[in-house]
Amino acid sequence: MRFWVDPLPRPGAYREVAIVVDVIRATTTAGVYLEAGAEALVLAPSLEAARALRRPGEVLAGEVGGLRPEGFDLGNSPKEAEGVRGRTVVMATTNGTRAAHAAKGARAILLGSLQNASSVAQKASELGEEVALVAAGKEGRMALDDLYAVGVIGARLLALGFRPEGEMAHLALFLAQSPPLEVLWVSEAAQALERVGLGADVALCAQVDRHGVVPVFQGFRDGGMVFGRG
Amino acid sequence: MRFWVDPLPRPGAYREVAIVVDVIRATTTAGVYLEAGAEALVLAPSLEAARALRRPGEVLAGEVGGLRPEGFDLGNSPKEAEGVRGRTVVMATTNGTRAAHAAKGARAILLGSLQNASSVAQKASELGEEVALVAAGKEGRMALDDLYAVGVIGARLLALGFRPEGEMAHLALFLAQSPPLEVLWVSEAAQALERVGLGADVALCAQVDRHGVVPVFQGFRDGGMVFGRG
Repeated sequence: MRFWVDPLPRPGAYREVAIVVDVIRATTTAGVYLEAGAEALVLAPSLEAARALRRPGEVLAGEVGGLRPEGFDLGNSPKEAEGVRGRTVVMATTNGTRAAHAAKGARAILLGSLQNASSVAQKASELGEEVALVAAGKEGRMALDDLYAVGVIGARLLALGFRPEGEMAHLALFLAQSPPLEVLWVSEAAQALERVGLGADVALCAQVDRHGVVPVFQGFRDGGMVFGRG
Repeated sequence: MRFWVDPLPRPGAYREVAIVVDVIRATTTAGVYLEAGAEALVLAPSLEAARALRRPGEVLAGEVGGLRPEGFDLGNSPKEAEGVRGRTVVMATTNGTRAAHAAKGARAILLGSLQNASSVAQKASELGEEVALVAAGKEGRMALDDLYAVGVIGARLLALGFRPEGEMAHLALFLAQSPPLEVLWVSEAAQALERVGLGADVALCAQVDRHGVVPVFQGFRDGGMVFGRG
Protein backbone atom coordinates (compact mmCIF):
# COMPACT_ATOMS: atom_id res chain seq x y z
CA MET A 1 0.00 0.00 0.00
CA ARG A 2 1.58 3.27 -1.11
CA PHE A 3 0.76 6.83 -1.98
CA TRP A 4 2.52 9.57 -3.87
CA VAL A 5 2.00 13.27 -4.40
CA ASP A 6 1.74 15.15 -7.66
CA PRO A 7 2.32 18.86 -7.04
CA LEU A 8 0.54 19.46 -10.35
CA PRO A 9 -1.98 17.26 -12.18
CA ARG A 10 -0.56 14.97 -14.86
CA PRO A 11 -3.39 14.27 -17.31
CA GLY A 12 -3.90 10.56 -17.92
CA ALA A 13 -1.32 9.44 -15.36
CA TYR A 14 -3.77 7.88 -12.92
CA ARG A 15 -4.98 4.28 -13.01
CA GLU A 16 -5.90 3.44 -9.43
CA VAL A 17 -7.30 5.77 -6.76
CA ALA A 18 -6.84 9.53 -7.21
CA ILE A 19 -7.66 12.14 -4.58
CA VAL A 20 -7.95 15.57 -6.17
CA VAL A 21 -7.34 18.57 -3.91
CA ASP A 22 -8.07 22.24 -4.62
CA VAL A 23 -8.39 23.27 -1.01
CA ILE A 24 -8.97 27.03 -1.55
CA ARG A 25 -11.74 26.55 -2.43
CA ALA A 26 -13.26 24.14 -4.98
CA THR A 27 -12.88 20.77 -3.29
CA THR A 28 -13.59 22.20 0.17
CA THR A 29 -16.81 23.77 -1.09
CA ALA A 30 -17.76 20.60 -2.98
CA GLY A 31 -17.66 18.70 0.31
CA VAL A 32 -19.67 21.41 2.05
CA TYR A 33 -22.45 21.22 -0.57
CA LEU A 34 -22.78 17.45 -0.22
CA GLU A 35 -22.64 17.71 3.55
CA ALA A 36 -25.41 20.31 3.39
CA GLY A 37 -27.56 17.76 1.58
CA ALA A 38 -26.90 18.41 -2.12
CA GLU A 39 -27.93 15.41 -4.25
CA ALA A 40 -24.95 15.63 -6.57
CA LEU A 41 -22.32 18.02 -7.91
CA VAL A 42 -21.36 18.67 -11.50
CA LEU A 43 -17.86 20.14 -11.97
CA ALA A 44 -17.90 22.32 -15.05
CA PRO A 45 -14.70 23.65 -16.59
CA SER A 46 -15.82 27.30 -16.88
CA LEU A 47 -18.61 29.75 -16.13
CA GLU A 48 -19.98 29.38 -19.66
CA ALA A 49 -19.93 25.60 -19.43
CA ALA A 50 -21.69 25.74 -16.06
CA ARG A 51 -24.43 27.97 -17.46
CA ALA A 52 -24.92 25.56 -20.37
CA LEU A 53 -24.86 22.48 -18.12
CA ARG A 54 -27.39 23.69 -15.56
CA ARG A 55 -30.82 22.09 -15.86
CA PRO A 56 -34.03 23.52 -14.45
CA GLY A 57 -34.14 23.30 -10.66
CA GLU A 58 -30.40 22.97 -10.34
CA VAL A 59 -28.23 25.35 -8.34
CA LEU A 60 -25.53 27.30 -10.15
CA ALA A 61 -22.33 28.07 -8.20
CA GLY A 62 -19.24 29.88 -9.45
CA GLU A 63 -16.90 32.77 -9.03
CA VAL A 64 -14.98 35.40 -10.94
CA GLY A 65 -12.07 36.90 -9.06
CA GLY A 66 -13.42 35.21 -5.95
CA LEU A 67 -16.89 36.74 -6.24
CA ARG A 68 -20.31 35.39 -7.31
CA PRO A 69 -20.97 36.12 -10.99
CA GLU A 70 -24.14 37.79 -12.24
CA GLY A 71 -26.99 35.28 -12.39
CA PHE A 72 -25.33 32.65 -10.20
CA ASP A 73 -27.00 31.32 -7.06
CA LEU A 74 -23.86 30.75 -5.04
CA GLY A 75 -20.26 31.94 -5.11
CA ASN A 76 -18.24 28.73 -4.60
CA SER A 77 -17.68 29.71 -0.98
CA PRO A 78 -17.67 27.11 1.82
CA LYS A 79 -19.68 29.49 3.96
CA GLU A 80 -22.75 29.49 1.66
CA ALA A 81 -24.70 26.32 1.04
CA GLU A 82 -28.24 27.61 1.35
CA GLY A 83 -30.78 25.99 -0.87
CA VAL A 84 -28.68 23.04 -2.00
CA ARG A 85 -30.53 20.33 -0.02
CA GLY A 86 -31.89 17.67 -2.34
CA ARG A 87 -30.68 19.47 -5.45
CA THR A 88 -27.82 19.12 -7.90
CA VAL A 89 -25.22 21.89 -7.80
CA VAL A 90 -23.42 22.81 -11.00
CA MET A 91 -20.05 24.24 -9.99
CA ALA A 92 -17.93 26.42 -12.24
CA THR A 93 -14.31 25.85 -11.24
CA THR A 94 -11.10 26.11 -13.21
CA ASN A 95 -8.12 24.57 -11.44
CA GLY A 96 -10.21 22.04 -9.51
CA THR A 97 -12.04 20.86 -12.60
CA ARG A 98 -8.84 20.68 -14.63
CA ALA A 99 -7.27 18.53 -11.91
CA ALA A 100 -10.34 16.28 -11.75
CA HIS A 101 -10.29 15.87 -15.54
CA ALA A 102 -6.58 14.94 -15.36
CA ALA A 103 -7.65 12.02 -13.18
CA LYS A 104 -10.00 10.56 -15.81
CA GLY A 105 -8.99 6.95 -16.31
CA ALA A 106 -8.41 6.38 -12.61
CA ARG A 107 -10.48 3.55 -11.15
CA ALA A 108 -11.80 5.92 -8.48
CA ILE A 109 -11.67 9.71 -8.18
CA LEU A 110 -12.33 11.41 -4.84
CA LEU A 111 -12.33 15.08 -3.89
CA GLY A 112 -10.22 15.82 -0.84
CA SER A 113 -9.89 18.80 1.46
CA LEU A 114 -8.78 19.46 5.01
CA GLN A 115 -12.41 19.30 6.10
CA ASN A 116 -12.68 15.64 5.04
CA ALA A 117 -8.99 14.64 5.42
CA SER A 118 -9.50 11.53 7.56
CA SER A 119 -12.58 10.39 5.68
CA VAL A 120 -11.12 10.78 2.22
CA ALA A 121 -8.03 8.84 3.30
CA GLN A 122 -10.21 6.11 4.82
CA LYS A 123 -12.38 5.93 1.69
CA ALA A 124 -9.30 5.74 -0.56
CA SER A 125 -7.88 2.91 1.54
CA GLU A 126 -11.09 0.95 1.04
CA LEU A 127 -10.93 1.45 -2.73
CA GLY A 128 -7.34 0.48 -3.49
CA GLU A 129 -3.73 0.05 -2.50
CA GLU A 130 -2.20 2.73 -4.74
CA VAL A 131 -3.29 6.28 -4.08
CA ALA A 132 -2.26 9.39 -6.00
CA LEU A 133 -2.71 12.68 -4.18
CA VAL A 134 -3.21 15.26 -6.91
CA ALA A 135 -2.70 18.90 -5.95
CA ALA A 136 -4.64 21.13 -8.34
CA GLY A 137 -2.19 24.04 -8.21
CA LYS A 138 -2.96 27.40 -9.73
CA GLU A 139 -2.60 28.14 -13.43
CA GLY A 140 0.02 25.46 -13.89
CA ARG A 141 2.04 26.41 -10.83
CA MET A 142 2.38 24.47 -7.60
CA ALA A 143 0.20 25.89 -4.82
CA LEU A 144 1.29 25.91 -1.18
CA ASP A 145 -2.24 25.40 0.15
CA ASP A 146 -2.89 22.32 -2.00
CA LEU A 147 0.50 20.82 -1.17
CA TYR A 148 -0.24 21.30 2.52
CA ALA A 149 -3.66 19.67 2.27
CA VAL A 150 -2.33 16.64 0.39
CA GLY A 151 0.29 16.36 3.13
CA VAL A 152 -2.40 16.22 5.81
CA ILE A 153 -4.31 13.58 3.84
CA GLY A 154 -1.01 11.75 3.26
CA ALA A 155 -0.39 11.67 7.00
CA ARG A 156 -3.77 9.96 7.42
CA LEU A 157 -2.83 7.39 4.75
CA LEU A 158 0.48 6.81 6.52
CA ALA A 159 -1.44 6.06 9.71
CA LEU A 160 -3.53 3.56 7.73
CA GLY A 161 -0.38 1.68 6.69
CA PHE A 162 0.37 3.33 3.35
CA ARG A 163 4.00 4.05 2.43
CA PRO A 164 4.95 7.49 1.03
CA GLU A 165 6.76 7.27 -2.27
CA GLY A 166 8.99 9.98 -3.69
CA GLU A 167 10.34 13.31 -2.51
CA MET A 168 7.09 15.20 -3.06
CA ALA A 169 5.23 12.89 -0.67
CA HIS A 170 7.87 13.54 1.97
CA LEU A 171 7.84 17.27 1.28
CA ALA A 172 4.06 17.36 1.76
CA LEU A 173 4.29 15.29 4.95
CA PHE A 174 6.90 17.64 6.45
CA LEU A 175 4.78 20.65 5.47
CA ALA A 176 1.74 19.04 7.13
CA GLN A 177 3.49 19.27 10.50
CA SER A 178 2.80 23.03 10.59
CA PRO A 179 -0.59 24.38 11.76
CA PRO A 180 -3.22 24.55 8.99
CA LEU A 181 -4.22 28.19 9.20
CA GLU A 182 -0.60 29.35 9.50
CA VAL A 183 0.27 27.65 6.20
CA LEU A 184 -2.93 28.36 4.29
CA TRP A 185 -2.88 31.99 5.27
CA VAL A 186 0.38 32.79 3.46
CA SER A 187 -0.73 31.03 0.25
CA GLU A 188 -1.40 33.15 -2.82
CA ALA A 189 -4.92 31.75 -3.00
CA ALA A 190 -5.67 32.97 0.54
CA GLN A 191 -4.12 36.36 -0.06
CA ALA A 192 -6.24 36.77 -3.21
CA LEU A 193 -9.41 35.97 -1.24
CA GLU A 194 -8.41 38.36 1.52
CA ARG A 195 -8.03 41.14 -1.06
CA VAL A 196 -11.66 40.71 -2.14
CA GLY A 197 -12.91 40.58 1.45
CA LEU A 198 -13.32 36.79 1.62
CA GLY A 199 -10.53 36.09 4.11
CA ALA A 200 -13.02 34.33 6.38
CA ASP A 201 -13.27 31.52 3.80
CA VAL A 202 -9.63 30.66 4.45
CA ALA A 203 -10.38 29.77 8.07
CA LEU A 204 -13.15 27.45 6.89
CA CYS A 205 -10.86 25.77 4.36
CA ALA A 206 -8.32 25.27 7.19
CA GLN A 207 -10.72 23.27 9.38
CA VAL A 208 -9.36 19.75 9.61
CA ASP A 209 -11.82 16.82 9.83
CA ARG A 210 -14.90 18.99 10.14
CA HIS A 211 -17.08 16.38 8.45
CA GLY A 212 -16.99 12.90 6.97
CA VAL A 213 -18.44 13.47 3.52
CA VAL A 214 -16.36 12.41 0.51
CA PRO A 215 -17.35 13.45 -3.02
CA VAL A 216 -16.88 10.41 -5.30
CA PHE A 217 -16.83 10.55 -9.10
CA GLN A 218 -19.88 8.89 -10.63
CA GLY A 219 -19.73 9.71 -14.32
CA PHE A 220 -19.87 12.42 -16.96
CA ARG A 221 -22.77 14.63 -17.92
CA ASP A 222 -22.32 16.80 -21.02
CA GLY A 223 -18.60 17.22 -20.36
CA GLY A 224 -19.08 17.96 -16.67
CA MET A 225 -17.88 15.52 -14.00
CA VAL A 226 -20.59 14.33 -11.64
CA PHE A 227 -19.74 13.63 -8.00
CA GLY A 228 -21.98 12.14 -5.34
CA ARG A 229 -21.67 11.09 -1.74
CA GLY A 230 -19.19 8.23 -1.37
CA MET B 1 15.03 43.87 2.34
CA ARG B 2 13.49 40.73 0.89
CA PHE B 3 14.33 37.27 -0.29
CA TRP B 4 12.65 34.73 -2.48
CA VAL B 5 13.20 31.09 -3.34
CA ASP B 6 13.56 29.53 -6.75
CA PRO B 7 12.97 25.77 -6.51
CA LEU B 8 14.86 25.50 -9.82
CA PRO B 9 17.42 27.86 -11.34
CA ARG B 10 16.08 30.40 -13.85
CA PRO B 11 18.98 31.34 -16.11
CA GLY B 12 19.49 35.09 -16.35
CA ALA B 13 16.83 35.96 -13.77
CA TYR B 14 19.19 37.29 -11.10
CA ARG B 15 20.40 40.87 -10.83
CA GLU B 16 21.22 41.36 -7.15
CA VAL B 17 22.53 38.78 -4.67
CA ALA B 18 22.09 35.09 -5.50
CA ILE B 19 22.83 32.23 -3.11
CA VAL B 20 23.19 28.96 -5.02
CA VAL B 21 22.53 25.76 -3.08
CA ASP B 22 23.29 22.18 -4.11
CA VAL B 23 23.50 20.80 -0.60
CA ILE B 24 24.11 17.13 -1.50
CA ARG B 25 26.92 17.70 -2.21
CA ALA B 26 28.51 20.33 -4.48
CA THR B 27 28.06 23.52 -2.50
CA THR B 28 28.65 21.77 0.84
CA THR B 29 31.92 20.33 -0.45
CA ALA B 30 32.92 23.67 -2.01
CA GLY B 31 32.73 25.26 1.45
CA VAL B 32 34.68 22.39 2.98
CA TYR B 33 37.54 22.84 0.49
CA LEU B 34 37.83 26.57 1.21
CA GLU B 35 37.57 25.93 4.94
CA ALA B 36 40.37 23.37 4.61
CA GLY B 37 42.55 26.10 3.11
CA ALA B 38 42.02 25.81 -0.64
CA GLU B 39 43.10 28.99 -2.43
CA ALA B 40 40.18 28.98 -4.87
CA LEU B 41 37.60 26.72 -6.50
CA VAL B 42 36.77 26.42 -10.17
CA LEU B 43 33.31 25.01 -10.89
CA ALA B 44 33.46 23.11 -14.16
CA PRO B 45 30.31 21.95 -15.92
CA SER B 46 31.46 18.35 -16.52
CA LEU B 47 34.24 15.82 -15.92
CA GLU B 48 35.71 16.54 -19.35
CA ALA B 49 35.64 20.29 -18.78
CA ALA B 50 37.30 19.83 -15.39
CA ARG B 51 40.09 17.74 -16.90
CA ALA B 52 40.67 20.42 -19.54
CA LEU B 53 40.52 23.28 -17.00
CA ARG B 54 42.95 21.81 -14.50
CA ARG B 55 46.40 23.45 -14.54
CA PRO B 56 49.58 21.90 -13.16
CA GLY B 57 49.55 21.77 -9.36
CA GLU B 58 45.78 22.05 -9.14
CA VAL B 59 43.56 19.49 -7.44
CA LEU B 60 40.93 17.70 -9.52
CA ALA B 61 37.68 16.76 -7.76
CA GLY B 62 34.66 15.07 -9.27
CA GLU B 63 32.32 12.14 -9.23
CA VAL B 64 30.48 9.70 -11.42
CA GLY B 65 27.50 8.03 -9.80
CA GLY B 66 28.75 9.44 -6.49
CA LEU B 67 32.24 7.92 -6.81
CA ARG B 68 35.69 9.38 -7.62
CA PRO B 69 36.48 8.99 -11.34
CA GLU B 70 39.71 7.44 -12.63
CA GLY B 71 42.54 9.98 -12.46
CA PHE B 72 40.77 12.39 -10.09
CA ASP B 73 42.35 13.42 -6.78
CA LEU B 74 39.13 13.79 -4.82
CA GLY B 75 35.56 12.59 -5.12
CA ASN B 76 33.49 15.75 -4.37
CA SER B 77 32.82 14.42 -0.89
CA PRO B 78 32.71 16.74 2.14
CA LYS B 79 34.65 14.16 4.10
CA GLU B 80 37.79 14.38 1.94
CA ALA B 81 39.76 17.60 1.68
CA GLU B 82 43.29 16.30 1.98
CA GLY B 83 45.90 18.14 0.00
CA VAL B 84 43.82 21.18 -0.90
CA ARG B 85 45.57 23.70 1.37
CA GLY B 86 47.00 26.59 -0.64
CA ARG B 87 45.90 25.07 -3.94
CA THR B 88 43.13 25.64 -6.43
CA VAL B 89 40.52 22.88 -6.67
CA VAL B 90 38.85 22.25 -10.01
CA MET B 91 35.45 20.73 -9.24
CA ALA B 92 33.40 18.78 -11.74
CA THR B 93 29.77 19.24 -10.84
CA THR B 94 26.62 19.17 -12.93
CA ASN B 95 23.57 20.52 -11.11
CA GLY B 96 25.59 22.85 -8.89
CA THR B 97 27.52 24.34 -11.79
CA ARG B 98 24.37 24.71 -13.89
CA ALA B 99 22.71 26.59 -11.04
CA ALA B 100 25.76 28.81 -10.56
CA HIS B 101 25.81 29.59 -14.29
CA ALA B 102 22.12 30.48 -14.15
CA ALA B 103 23.10 33.18 -11.65
CA LYS B 104 25.52 34.90 -14.06
CA GLY B 105 24.51 38.53 -14.23
CA ALA B 106 23.82 38.74 -10.52
CA ARG B 107 25.84 41.42 -8.73
CA ALA B 108 27.08 38.81 -6.26
CA ILE B 109 26.96 35.01 -6.32
CA LEU B 110 27.50 32.99 -3.15
CA LEU B 111 27.50 29.25 -2.56
CA GLY B 112 25.30 28.21 0.34
CA SER B 113 24.90 25.03 2.33
CA LEU B 114 23.68 24.03 5.75
CA GLN B 115 27.27 24.09 6.99
CA ASN B 116 27.57 27.83 6.28
CA ALA B 117 23.87 28.79 6.64
CA SER B 118 24.29 31.68 9.09
CA SER B 119 27.44 32.99 7.42
CA VAL B 120 26.08 32.94 3.89
CA ALA B 121 22.95 34.78 5.06
CA GLN B 122 25.07 37.33 6.90
CA LYS B 123 27.34 37.82 3.88
CA ALA B 124 24.34 38.22 1.57
CA SER B 125 22.84 40.86 3.87
CA GLU B 126 26.06 42.83 3.66
CA LEU B 127 26.02 42.68 -0.14
CA GLY B 128 22.46 43.73 -0.93
CA GLU B 129 18.82 44.08 -0.03
CA GLU B 130 17.36 41.62 -2.54
CA VAL B 131 18.45 38.02 -2.18
CA ALA B 132 17.49 35.11 -4.43
CA LEU B 133 17.88 31.65 -2.93
CA VAL B 134 18.48 29.35 -5.88
CA ALA B 135 17.96 25.62 -5.28
CA ALA B 136 19.97 23.63 -7.80
CA GLY B 137 17.54 20.73 -8.05
CA LYS B 138 18.35 17.53 -9.85
CA GLU B 139 18.11 17.15 -13.62
CA GLY B 140 15.50 19.86 -13.90
CA ARG B 141 13.39 18.61 -11.01
CA MET B 142 12.95 20.23 -7.61
CA ALA B 143 15.05 18.57 -4.92
CA LEU B 144 13.84 18.19 -1.33
CA ASP B 145 17.33 18.57 0.15
CA ASP B 146 18.02 21.84 -1.68
CA LEU B 147 14.61 23.26 -0.81
CA TYR B 148 15.23 22.43 2.83
CA ALA B 149 18.65 24.09 2.86
CA VAL B 150 17.37 27.27 1.23
CA GLY B 151 14.67 27.30 3.90
CA VAL B 152 17.28 27.17 6.66
CA ILE B 153 19.23 30.00 5.02
CA GLY B 154 15.96 31.88 4.51
CA ALA B 155 15.20 31.60 8.23
CA ARG B 156 18.57 33.27 8.91
CA LEU B 157 17.71 36.07 6.47
CA LEU B 158 14.34 36.47 8.19
CA ALA B 159 16.16 36.93 11.50
CA LEU B 160 18.30 39.60 9.82
CA GLY B 161 15.20 41.57 8.87
CA PHE B 162 14.56 40.24 5.36
CA ARG B 163 10.96 39.61 4.28
CA PRO B 164 10.07 36.32 2.52
CA GLU B 165 8.36 36.86 -0.81
CA GLY B 166 6.19 34.31 -2.56
CA GLU B 167 4.82 30.89 -1.74
CA MET B 168 8.08 29.06 -2.37
CA ALA B 169 9.86 31.12 0.29
CA HIS B 170 7.13 30.21 2.77
CA LEU B 171 7.19 26.57 1.72
CA ALA B 172 10.95 26.42 2.31
CA LEU B 173 10.60 28.18 5.68
CA PHE B 174 7.96 25.70 6.86
CA LEU B 175 10.12 22.80 5.66
CA ALA B 176 13.09 24.24 7.57
CA GLN B 177 11.23 23.69 10.84
CA SER B 178 11.93 19.95 10.61
CA PRO B 179 15.28 18.49 11.73
CA PRO B 180 18.02 18.58 9.04
CA LEU B 181 19.00 14.94 8.94
CA GLU B 182 15.39 13.77 9.02
CA VAL B 183 14.61 15.76 5.86
CA LEU B 184 17.87 15.23 4.00
CA TRP B 185 17.80 11.53 4.64
CA VAL B 186 14.61 10.92 2.63
CA SER B 187 15.81 12.97 -0.35
CA GLU B 188 16.59 11.16 -3.59
CA ALA B 189 20.13 12.56 -3.51
CA ALA B 190 20.75 11.01 -0.09
CA GLN B 191 19.24 7.70 -1.07
CA ALA B 192 21.46 7.60 -4.17
CA LEU B 193 24.57 8.21 -2.01
CA GLU B 194 23.48 5.56 0.46
CA ARG B 195 23.20 3.05 -2.38
CA VAL B 196 26.87 3.57 -3.30
CA GLY B 197 28.01 3.36 0.33
CA LEU B 198 28.38 7.12 0.87
CA GLY B 199 25.51 7.56 3.32
CA ALA B 200 27.92 9.13 5.84
CA ASP B 201 28.26 12.16 3.54
CA VAL B 202 24.59 12.94 4.15
CA ALA B 203 25.20 13.48 7.86
CA LEU B 204 28.02 15.91 7.00
CA CYS B 205 25.79 17.81 4.57
CA ALA B 206 23.16 18.04 7.36
CA GLN B 207 25.48 19.81 9.81
CA VAL B 208 24.11 23.31 10.33
CA ASP B 209 26.54 26.20 10.92
CA ARG B 210 29.63 24.02 11.14
CA HIS B 211 31.85 26.79 9.75
CA GLY B 212 31.81 30.39 8.62
CA VAL B 213 33.36 30.15 5.17
CA VAL B 214 31.38 31.49 2.21
CA PRO B 215 32.48 30.80 -1.37
CA VAL B 216 32.06 34.03 -3.36
CA PHE B 217 32.15 34.26 -7.16
CA GLN B 218 35.25 36.06 -8.44
CA GLY B 219 35.22 35.62 -12.18
CA PHE B 220 35.42 33.17 -15.06
CA ARG B 221 38.38 31.06 -16.15
CA ASP B 222 38.04 29.19 -19.44
CA GLY B 223 34.31 28.72 -18.93
CA GLY B 224 34.65 27.62 -15.31
CA MET B 225 33.36 29.80 -12.47
CA VAL B 226 36.00 30.75 -9.91
CA PHE B 227 35.01 31.09 -6.26
CA GLY B 228 37.17 32.33 -3.40
CA ARG B 229 36.73 33.04 0.27
CA GLY B 230 34.26 35.89 0.81
